[in-house]
Amino acid sequence: MRRYEVYVTGKPGIFDPAGKTTAGALDNLGYSGVERVRIGKFLQLECDDAISLEQVTEMCEKLLANPIIEDYRIECTPENPSRADAQAVFRGVLENNGE
Amino acid sequence: MRRYEVYVTGKPGIFDPAGKTTAGALDNLGYSGVERVRIGKFLQLECDDAISLEQVTEMCEKLLANPIIEDYRIECTPENPSRADAQAVFRGVLENNGE
Repeated sequence: MRRYEVYVTGKPGIFDPAGKTTAGALDNLGYSGVERVRIGKFLQLECDDAISLEQVTEMCEKLLANPIIEDYRIECTPENPSRADAQAVFRGVLENNGE
Repeated sequence: MRRYEVYVTGKPGIFDPAGKTTAGALDNLGYSGVERVRIGKFLQLECDDAISLEQVTEMCEKLLANPIIEDYRIECTPENPSRADAQAVFRGVLENNGE
């Protein structure tokens, strides 16, 4: 069993009416420090092990996102992250910071 | 500037018609290995530094999620994850695995 998480968000510059309305409603509730809200989709796919990251990318292009106006990001989450996964995250962040 | 990401998903057992339809459509497209799809919301909040995690939790309870049928998870993402953040992730995963 493999689990993919897909995050779909509007491309920068695309108007997000739901986000705009939500930001206005938060302001009305007294949370004036919220400057911008963007709302996207969050999909969890439970697949058998035969489904590859490449296939999930295809699914996004064909069905899960609208690539003209939306960006997507895919994460594959093993049920229990291993020591190797943790080390990969750790190394990735250090590299990002040029360490 | 602080950025919160809120993930809203249906509670286990709550019927998710959009997810069910998406799973059916993927099956029709030939991806028979996808067993289940759940669709939730993904909100990005750009706030000034005065907005605390506690306040974002309040926003979720009042407006961003429906706590009767939905679960939510909040993440605070600094613009650039620091070495300390990376070490916290690393330690968290090791503790999860009892190491």
